[in-house]
Amino acid sequence: MNLILLSPDDFINKKTRVRLDDRRYLHIRDIHRAKAGDELSVGLIGDRIGTGKIASLTGEAIEMDISLSLQPPAPIPVTLILALPRPNILKRTLQAASAMGVKKIFLIHSNQVEKSFWLSPVLQPAKIREQLILGLEQGKDTILPDVQLRKGFKPFVEDELPDLIQGTRALVAHPRASEECPRDVREPVTLMIGPEGGFIPYEIKKLTELGFTPVHLGNRILRVENAIVALLAKLY
Amino acid sequence: MNLILLSPDDFINKKTRVRLDDRRYLHIRDIHRAKAGDELSVGLIGDRIGTGKIASLTGEAIEMDISLSLQPPAPIPVTLILALPRPNILKRTLQAASAMGVKKIFLIHSNQVEKSFWLSPVLQPAKIREQLILGLEQGKDTILPDVQLRKGFKPFVEDELPDLIQGTRALVAHPRASEECPRDVREPVTLMIGPEGGFIPYEIKKLTELGFTPVHLGNRILRVENAIVALLAKLY
Repeated sequence: MNLILLSPDDFINKKTRVRLDDRRYLHIRDIHRAKAGDELSVGLIGDRIGTGKIASLTGEAIEMDISLSLQPPAPIPVTLILALPRPNILKRTLQAASAMGVKKIFLIHSNQVEKSFWLSPVLQPAKIREQLILGLEQGKDTILPDVQLRKGFKPFVEDELPDLIQGTRALVAHPRASEECPRDVREPVTLMIGPEGGFIPYEIKKLTELGFTPVHLGNRILRVENAIVALLAKLY
Repeated sequence: MNLILLSPDDFINKKTRVRLDDRRYLHIRDIHRAKAGDELSVGLIGDRIGTGKIASLTGEAIEMDISLSLQPPAPIPVTLILALPRPNILKRTLQAASAMGVKKIFLIHSNQVEKSFWLSPVLQPAKIREQLILGLEQGKDTILPDVQLRKGFKPFVEDELPDLIQGTRALVAHPRASEECPRDVREPVTLMIGPEGGFIPYEIKKLTELGFTPVHLGNRILRVENAIVALLAKLY
């Protein structure tokens, strides 16, 4: 937790004093091993980042005086469209994308996605938010990514995707692509990433017809949570 | 498991027939849902990759006829020197490094590494090998990385590191560095990555005196398993 993320509910007076007694309190007490007078990095969800000076730390809770001064780091201008991965991988993937500054994520169905994945409790909005917050705490950011679920491949690709890719470079990660993933693009990207078995030829055809370029990461196949990090690191 | 990794023990006649009854068998049966006649990607540890044609698949074991023809993918010319991360993160980190083609890894002590991490069962050679093999199966490679443990920072840096960095570009990942991580370097690199709390100023000073350049990954702090993937993706 490189940044203690606060919500408006944490404030016990108008603007400056917060009281925490949840996992953030335990983390500050047991991992940071902080004490009264110490200053910690804090941020208000959807708002600025700054410092929290510990006013008191008891066996039950911590109180801090908050001063917010800096804007959160710039987002990366990518829309991430991800074939729904298996639940334990989804958690790490959402965390990593959130830590790296992705702000727009679609989780979509595709042929090789197991239908049972859509039933996972990990997809509940509160569970998704939990992973995104862990990512923000890691990456020292306050702006929650927007995550949308789309259970149909074809309606998403035909009805929504043409508008989404307007003004962006549209790339689909595909192990059998002939082009390498471009580097340091300095422009907005729509990045699609397939499921473990990859997108099927019909899906790749639909995407290339829309203007997507298939790109690869070399001749090694990475797990989706690593592939996303590698693709974003190459692109930006 | 994008590649079924074989060892010489798996062969039941001189060169061509293997019999598997362990987790690889269960994976082929339950995840690949393969049947007699199907061909799978296989590789022999330390040797070539090729195909295995399923001769029989019973309730107990699978037998395959193996044909090995291709060299494994080229390694990436990096020596990874990693301050020992906490055990659950170490596992994912070794897997990711192995999948990406790193062949030489040192796990070292540094000031901010918790001493208890050195007592973890994850550091037993068999457990390390298990993670490396999972990475090779993912990345479709057969060459096991060499992993060395060094429990003293100073003796390692003073006695071994000067020789190790000969002929390589020496970089240390450091969040407060002024230079960005270089891209697409096309040369051997010695890459050092600190613990969660980072290298302390004394350690950074020792490393820069040896010729290391501190580099950063932007103003977001990534977890070590993601930082490694991001650094390797930028470098190669």
